[in-house]
Amino acid sequence: MHFNCDVGESFGSWNMGNDAAVMPYIDMANIACGFHASDPVTMARTVALAVQHNVTIGAHPSYPDLQGFGRRDMQLSAEELTQGVLYQMGALQAICQAQGTRISYVKPHGALYNRKAVDHEVLDSVMRAVAAFDTNLPLMMIAGVRQQEAQQLADRHGIKLLFEAFSDRAYNDDGTLVPRTQPGAVHTSVERVIRQIREITLQQMVTTISGCQRSLTADSICLHGDNEQLLSSIKEIRRTLQM
Amino acid sequence: MHFNCDVGESFGSWNMGNDAAVMPYIDMANIACGFHASDPVTMARTVALAVQHNVTIGAHPSYPDLQGFGRRDMQLSAEELTQGVLYQMGALQAICQAQGTRISYVKPHGALYNRKAVDHEVLDSVMRAVAAFDTNLPLMMIAGVRQQEAQQLADRHGIKLLFEAFSDRAYNDDGTLVPRTQPGAVHTSVERVIRQIREITLQQMVTTISGCQRSLTADSICLHGDNEQLLSSIKEIRRTLQM
Amino acid sequence: MHFNCDVGESFGSWNMGNDAAVMPYIDMANIACGFHASDPVTMARTVALAVQHNVTIGAHPSYPDLQGFGRRDMQLSAEELTQGVLYQMGALQAICQAQGTRISYVKPHGALYNRKAVDHEVLDSVMRAVAAFDTNLPLMMIAGVRQQEAQQLADRHGIKLLFEAFSDRAYNDDGTLVPRTQPGAVHTSVERVIRQIREITLQQMVTTISGCQRSLTADSICLHGDNEQLLSSIKEIRRTLQM
Amino acid sequence: MHFNCDVGESFGSWNMGNDAAVMPYIDMANIACGFHASDPVTMARTVALAVQHNVTIGAHPSYPDLQGFGRRDMQLSAEELTQGVLYQMGALQAICQAQGTRISYVKPHGALYNRKAVDHEVLDSVMRAVAAFDTNLPLMMIAGVRQQEAQQLADRHGIKLLFEAFSDRAYNDDGTLVPRTQPGAVHTSVERVIRQIREITLQQMVTTISGCQRSLTADSICLHGDNEQLLSSIKEIRRTLQM
Repeated sequence: MHFNCDVGESFGSWNMGNDAAVMPYIDMANIACGFHASDPVTMARTVALAVQHNVTIGAHPSYPDLQGFGRRDMQLSAEELTQGVLYQMGALQAICQAQGTRISYVKPHGALYNRKAVDHEVLDSVMRAVAAFDTNLPLMMIAGVRQQEAQQLADRHGIKLLFEAFSDRAYNDDGTLVPRTQPGAVHTSVERVIRQIREITLQQMVTTISGCQRSLTADSICLHGDNEQLLSSIKEIRRTLQM
Repeated sequence: MHFNCDVGESFGSWNMGNDAAVMPYIDMANIACGFHASDPVTMARTVALAVQHNVTIGAHPSYPDLQGFGRRDMQLSAEELTQGVLYQMGALQAICQAQGTRISYVKPHGALYNRKAVDHEVLDSVMRAVAAFDTNLPLMMIAGVRQQEAQQLADRHGIKLLFEAFSDRAYNDDGTLVPRTQPGAVHTSVERVIRQIREITLQQMVTTISGCQRSLTADSICLHGDNEQLLSSIKEIRRTLQM
Repeated sequence: MHFNCDVGESFGSWNMGNDAAVMPYIDMANIACGFHASDPVTMARTVALAVQHNVTIGAHPSYPDLQGFGRRDMQLSAEELTQGVLYQMGALQAICQAQGTRISYVKPHGALYNRKAVDHEVLDSVMRAVAAFDTNLPLMMIAGVRQQEAQQLADRHGIKLLFEAFSDRAYNDDGTLVPRTQPGAVHTSVERVIRQIREITLQQMVTTISGCQRSLTADSICLHGDNEQLLSSIKEIRRTLQM
Repeated sequence: MHFNCDVGESFGSWNMGNDAAVMPYIDMANIACGFHASDPVTMARTVALAVQHNVTIGAHPSYPDLQGFGRRDMQLSAEELTQGVLYQMGALQAICQAQGTRISYVKPHGALYNRKAVDHEVLDSVMRAVAAFDTNLPLMMIAGVRQQEAQQLADRHGIKLLFEAFSDRAYNDDGTLVPRTQPGAVHTSVERVIRQIREITLQQMVTTISGCQRSLTADSICLHGDNEQLLSSIKEIRRTLQM
């Protein structure tokens, strides 16, 4: 089980997150590629931080929308999606290469991440980009939502998938995330987050917002780096779970 | 002797140049990377066109300035320059890789091209990017201007240089180009362009704007694709010159 | 009956359309405001051209999407829509003011134009912007589609509407436009365009793609400026129709 | 004597400064217009905050460079400068108008602010924009640097000037600011800042970095909002100075 976290989401003079604080505690760094956040210098500094802490680097491509932080859904054509994801993977890869490292997986961001979970054509366009770049790079998907369909499509493209669970997001009974616009969508209590991490890692299940228990098998767990109390608990969690 | 040409400079719904017309006649395609022109789809289509015509692909990175087409000088830091050039090289490389090809050289664009010819620190930042990406990729420079200094710096970075001459730009006596803001800066007569190409290729010299003859040795000649009459003459030129 | 046309859609070094050719023949210039096309200098030059030909100026605001030319649907919040439209109206108004003129109406562009015709909340957000800026500025809508609903909402905002018909677009039987992705969506024959203009202006109806005749009452007719043959016919059309 | 402060410099999902904390203590809010920072929604919220605290609103236009926060010098043409400043003034004015207020002065930002202090043509282009928009809007300039030359040019354009001094920047003996790249450029001690404010307001002079006293007459003093200790001192300063 690996912890992944979105990092490198500052832009120019604007800071976001606390990458230096979170990097020592994570296994996989989803690094923004300049379309929803970041710029070449921020990317280079984030890659350096990941290298320093021996964290695996993933590309975190997005719709082209800095103003909306990639969170606004956009109607892109299949070609725009495929080439846009390729563009971002390559940009990050070159910055990695200059520091003697490389990208090892791909996790789309925000509205594109959500869309590809439910839109077959968008998922197909993203997979086409990954397959054309390097079939050894796994694509990260939300665990438990149309997972079989995603796996079949990945097989056709000859690529691998990584399924991730969320540590601080509430789940609906059908395995989807409770939208951020609804109350209780995000667990603010560290105890609640830790309990969810334990459920996922030790029992392969999650307690949904209605109180049901739903089976959930994941390769990675997504953390959010803006909770300092959580970060200080990660070391403890790792020891307990022997992760 | 090879002809190079700036291509792939459309952006979104806006067209520029006539890449389909020029590609059959050139040897090296300087492909824009999204900072002064182009977008992922335009880049992919331009790469496809180059592949179809067996044209060598070069990255054509720029300052980040779509509105100014990369022609406005900007004060970027060394880190911004190096990482920005890496970002663009990688983006184009990924799109090439998806089509089974790769970038083979780097030619900066516009204000960055002009600045690096006369600003040692800017040149150093650009070379740092090329060297960090792949020391086998030559960097293209203007021939005859501070050429020895550029060669020494390239040697320190362990990279190769390609020197280019211009087919349709008037030269000052000191080997620099007559600025576009001055009369006579661009040769509009096809005969004049062809004469300059002959001088460069057959006699390794150029007739300057004052009528002097100046020695000029180049690895490549830059064409501009917006002159249809010139394109129709290229085949004739090649036969005459046995290029 | 007035002819309106989208103009000022160049961007930086990229040209689009032929504003100088079309301006003498139109009554209303829908001028792009920098979000889907244009930049401050292009806006100023387009305003100057409109003033020179005594053409009424309208703001042509869009989603913020230069790469997609405002043609890709985006999920913007009500606040983003309202303030974004205000921003664009004000930017154009200042450039007009510097030349002794002003904007006289508002016609949203592309995906935003299409969306506001069918999405009550988006229409409400756009109207909120117009009403807050100046209740004397009419908002332009497509004629014949949910027209009564639009009128009721406009009444609540205290603003006026202008309804427009399209000269070169095929109509469905329900009064909507045939999508550009379908065959026959755009009339390419000048005779067909002129016939449609005659139907709209003289008979207040339009022949749909299925051959039916549908009643259509419009305040303005939209032309596209990229058809030279059409432009040369406009003078003739005007004389015939005494428009 | 009035305190002015740069505000509204967040962008999309990125926050900068603490406008809610600083607004109660200032007289004049320099509001970013979207070129170096901000977006339509941020502008609207900043205007609302200024209105709530009865703070005078000024436009804070910039070079078009979000990534560089308007701090990188750029070579813009006179027309690009004039129309770009007009565009930004109008955008903010429309957002003000929707809230029943208006812009009352103009203070360019960052590299444009610094450039116009020493580049006659750039200053002329900025003044041309202000004069064309509204000759009643004063333009804010740095006090004590080529002040007479600026005043003469303003007289020719028929506009007024406001001269400002800086509370937390060290001065050279010639009245220019010590560049941020040099040690001691910014006063980090609140006591030092308060002393400088007292000197400027009570004695019309400033102690330079070399220890000299230089005469300095200003209409406004620029504060920076990121110093919480300073904000808590402002109330005290105002009482002492009866400002």
